[in-house]
Amino acid sequence: MPFAFLMHDPLAGTLMLLALLWLSAKVGGELAMRLKLPSVTGELAVGLALATLHRAWSAFPDVAASPATELLGGLGVVVLMFAVGLESTVPQMLKVGLASLRVAVIGVVLPMAAGLAGAWLLLPQGSPFMLDLFIAACLCATSIGISAQVLREKGASDSLEGRIIVGAAVVDDVLGLLVLVAVSGMVAAASGAVAGPGLMNTLALALGFLVVAFTLGRLVTPYLFSLASRLRGEEVLLPLGLGFAFLLAWLGNLAGLASIVGAYAAGLILEPAHIEDLERRERRTLEELVHPLVTVLSPLFFVLMGAKVDPAALFKPATLGFAALLAVLGVAGKYLAGFGGGKGTRAAVVGWGMVPRGEVGLIFVAAGAQLRLNGAPLLSAEVQAGVIGTLLITTVAGPVGLGWVLRGRRRS
Amino acid sequence: MPFAFLMHDPLAGTLMLLALLWLSAKVGGELAMRLKLPSVTGELAVGLALATLHRAWSAFPDVAASPATELLGGLGVVVLMFAVGLESTVPQMLKVGLASLRVAVIGVVLPMAAGLAGAWLLLPQGSPFMLDLFIAACLCATSIGISAQVLREKGASDSLEGRIIVGAAVVDDVLGLLVLVAVSGMVAAASGAVAGPGLMNTLALALGFLVVAFTLGRLVTPYLFSLASRLRGEEVLLPLGLGFAFLLAWLGNLAGLASIVGAYAAGLILEPAHIEDLERRERRTLEELVHPLVTVLSPLFFVLMGAKVDPAALFKPATLGFAALLAVLGVAGKYLAGFGGGKGTRAAVVGWGMVPRGEVGLIFVAAGAQLRLNGAPLLSAEVQAGVIGTLLITTVAGPVGLGWVLRGRRRS
Repeated sequence: MPFAFLMHDPLAGTLMLLALLWLSAKVGGELAMRLKLPSVTGELAVGLALATLHRAWSAFPDVAASPATELLGGLGVVVLMFAVGLESTVPQMLKVGLASLRVAVIGVVLPMAAGLAGAWLLLPQGSPFMLDLFIAACLCATSIGISAQVLREKGASDSLEGRIIVGAAVVDDVLGLLVLVAVSGMVAAASGAVAGPGLMNTLALALGFLVVAFTLGRLVTPYLFSLASRLRGEEVLLPLGLGFAFLLAWLGNLAGLASIVGAYAAGLILEPAHIEDLERRERRTLEELVHPLVTVLSPLFFVLMGAKVDPAALFKPATLGFAALLAVLGVAGKYLAGFGGGKGTRAAVVGWGMVPRGEVGLIFVAAGAQLRLNGAPLLSAEVQAGVIGTLLITTVAGPVGLGWVLRGRRRS
Repeated sequence: MPFAFLMHDPLAGTLMLLALLWLSAKVGGELAMRLKLPSVTGELAVGLALATLHRAWSAFPDVAASPATELLGGLGVVVLMFAVGLESTVPQMLKVGLASLRVAVIGVVLPMAAGLAGAWLLLPQGSPFMLDLFIAACLCATSIGISAQVLREKGASDSLEGRIIVGAAVVDDVLGLLVLVAVSGMVAAASGAVAGPGLMNTLALALGFLVVAFTLGRLVTPYLFSLASRLRGEEVLLPLGLGFAFLLAWLGNLAGLASIVGAYAAGLILEPAHIEDLERRERRTLEELVHPLVTVLSPLFFVLMGAKVDPAALFKPATLGFAALLAVLGVAGKYLAGFGGGKGTRAAVVGWGMVPRGEVGLIFVAAGAQLRLNGAPLLSAEVQAGVIGTLLITTVAGPVGLGWVLRGRRRS
C-alpha cells in the first residue's frame, strides 16, 4: 500500500501500548488486592510479566524500551510526589523534622554496615574493598514513590508516619547523593584518577536548594500565585501549578537532587491560602485537579519499573541467593531505622515505608556500572544482577510489609 | 564534574520545557482573551513566537523538535476529542447526521472548486494540472481540534451547532482521506507508477470502522464496563476510559482515519448509563476526570502547532500573497458550507467552525511533499510554504470568526 503512510499517525502505536498498559495495570492491581497486597505490587508484577512476554515472543511490544512510557512514567512519579507534597505543609514537616532526620541517618548507617558485612561474607575472597563499599551504598537509597502510593491507597499520606517517611526520604536523598559521590570519589582516587567535585560542594549545593526553596520560595510563591489569579482564563490553576512543580523539580535536579525531591518541595510550599482565589473560581482544589493525572500516570511508572528487570539474569539460583541475603540485611537495616521515628506500630510503619529501594538504587547500579577500578569494571555482570535482584526484593517487600502493618493498625 | 551524570535525570530538561510551555501558553491565551479572541489563537501565536526565539537564539529550546511535547501534544488532541465525544451521545449525533453530511459534502466540493480556480489563477502557466488538484485538496480538510476547543471555551460543545460541526468533521475526515488517495493515485498513474489501494477499498475500510464502532461497539461497551465495575480498586474509571478511547483511536487509525476520529467515536459510544456504578463509587463523572487532562495537554498541542510554522518561509511577500488569496477562497468555501447546516447565525457558527485546516492540512502537505510527478517533486518549496501559510491563516481565522459569531449570538 504505497499510500498507507498518508493517514498513519505515528502516535497510533503509542496509543495502543498505553491502552494495554492501563488495562493490564488495573488487572494486576486487582489481583494483588484480592491477595491482600497493595495494588502497586500487582503493577510491578504486571511489568515483569509483560517484559517476559516480550522476551518470549518478540512481536509483543517492548514496554521497557518505549520512549513514550519512559516519559509518561517519569512524569508520573514527579506528579505523584507533587501530589504527596500538596497534602502537607512546611510547618507540619518541620514538626517531624527531627524524627525524619533520625530515621534517615540510621537508615543510611545501618544498611551500609549490614551491606559491608554481607558483601564481605558473600563475595569471593580478594574482592576489592571498593566493591563491598559500593554494594553497601546501593542498600542506602530509599525509593519513596512506592511507599507514597501505598500510603495514598490506604489514606495515610497525611498521617504523622506518612510525613516522617517522606521527610526521611528527602534527607535520605541528600545523604544518598553524598554516599554515592564519596564512594565514586574513593574508587576514582584508588585508580589514581582526578578527584570529583568535593563532598562539601555537593552537600552545599543540595542543601542550598532545599533551604532556598523553603525560605525564599515560601516568600515568593504567594505573590506569584496572586499574580496568576488575575488571569481571566478558566483553566489556569492546574497548568500553572504543574508548571511550578516541574520548575522546582528541574532546579532541584540541577542542584544534584532527584527530580521528585523538587516536585515534593513544590507541593509542600504551595499552601491552600496561596491559591484559594483560583480554586474558588475553578470550583476545584488543586489536589482534586492533580488527582486524575496521578491516577493515569503513576501506574505507568510502576509497570515500567517492573518491566525493566531482566528475568533471565534474575532467576539464577546463585543470583537469587546473593540477592535474598543482601535483601534481608537491607530490609533489616531500614526496618530498624523506623525506631528513629517512634515506638511500636509507628516504628513498624516508618521502617517498612523506608524499605523499597526501587529506581534510586537502579540509578546507583547504573552509576556503578560505569566505574572502573584499575582498568577493570568495578561491578561484574553477576554482581549487577544480584544487586538488582536485591533492589527488586526490597521493592516488593516494602509495600507488602507496609500494607500489612497499616491493615493491622486499622483493625486494632 | 565527572559525577554530574550520577543524579542527572534525563527527564529534567523536559520538565523545564513543559513548565515554560504552560506558563507561556497561559500568558498567550490571556492576551488573546483581552483582545476578545479565543485563547487558542494566543496559544498558536505563542508557539510561533517561541519557534522564532529559537531560530534567533539557538540556546533557546526548540519546542517543535522536542519528542516529549510532540507526544504530549498528540495525546492532548486525542484526549480533547474524547472529551468532546463524551458530551454527546450517538442518538443525538444521528439527529444531526443529515445536516452534518450536507455540511461536509459542500465543505469538500466548494473549497475544492475554489482551490482549483485559485491555483489556476496564481500558479505560473504550464504548471501541471496535478499540482492545482493537490493544492485544492489541501483546502478540503477540517481540523476539528481547534473549533472543539473554542466551542468548549464558550460552553457550546453540546449545542446543536457544535454537534453538526463535529459530525461534519468526522464525515470530512472520510472524504478528505478519499480525496487524498484519489489525487495521489492520479499523480502516481500520471507518472506511470503502480496504482495504490482502490478508492473503494479505502472507503469501505473507513466506513466499516465507523459502522462497527457505532453498532457492535455500542452493544459490547456496556458489558465491558459492567465487568470493569467489579474491580475493587479506587482509581479504575479514568485509566480504563482512556484506555478504551486510545484503543478505538488506534483501530480507527488502522482503518485509515485520523486517531482523533476514533477517540471521538469512543466518547460518543460511552454513555453515562454504562459507567454509573464506577462514577458513583469514585464520586466523579468520567467527564470531570478527563477535564484536568484536557486542561494540561491540549495547550501543548496548540503551542506546538504554532511552533511548527517556519516564520522565514512564511513572511515573504509573494508567499503571503499566495497564501492570503488561497485562504480567502478556502474560508469562503467552508463558510458557505455552513448553510448546509441551517440558516442565519447557525449557518455562520457552523461555517466558521469548519474553517480551520490545521494539522490535517499539514498531513496533506507532508504527503504531497513526498509525491513525484515524472521524476520531479510535485510541490516546490515555495508552493509548500504558500500552502502552509494558507493553513495557518485559516487556522487563526477559524477560531477568531467562531468566537466572534458565538459572542454576537449570546449578546442578541
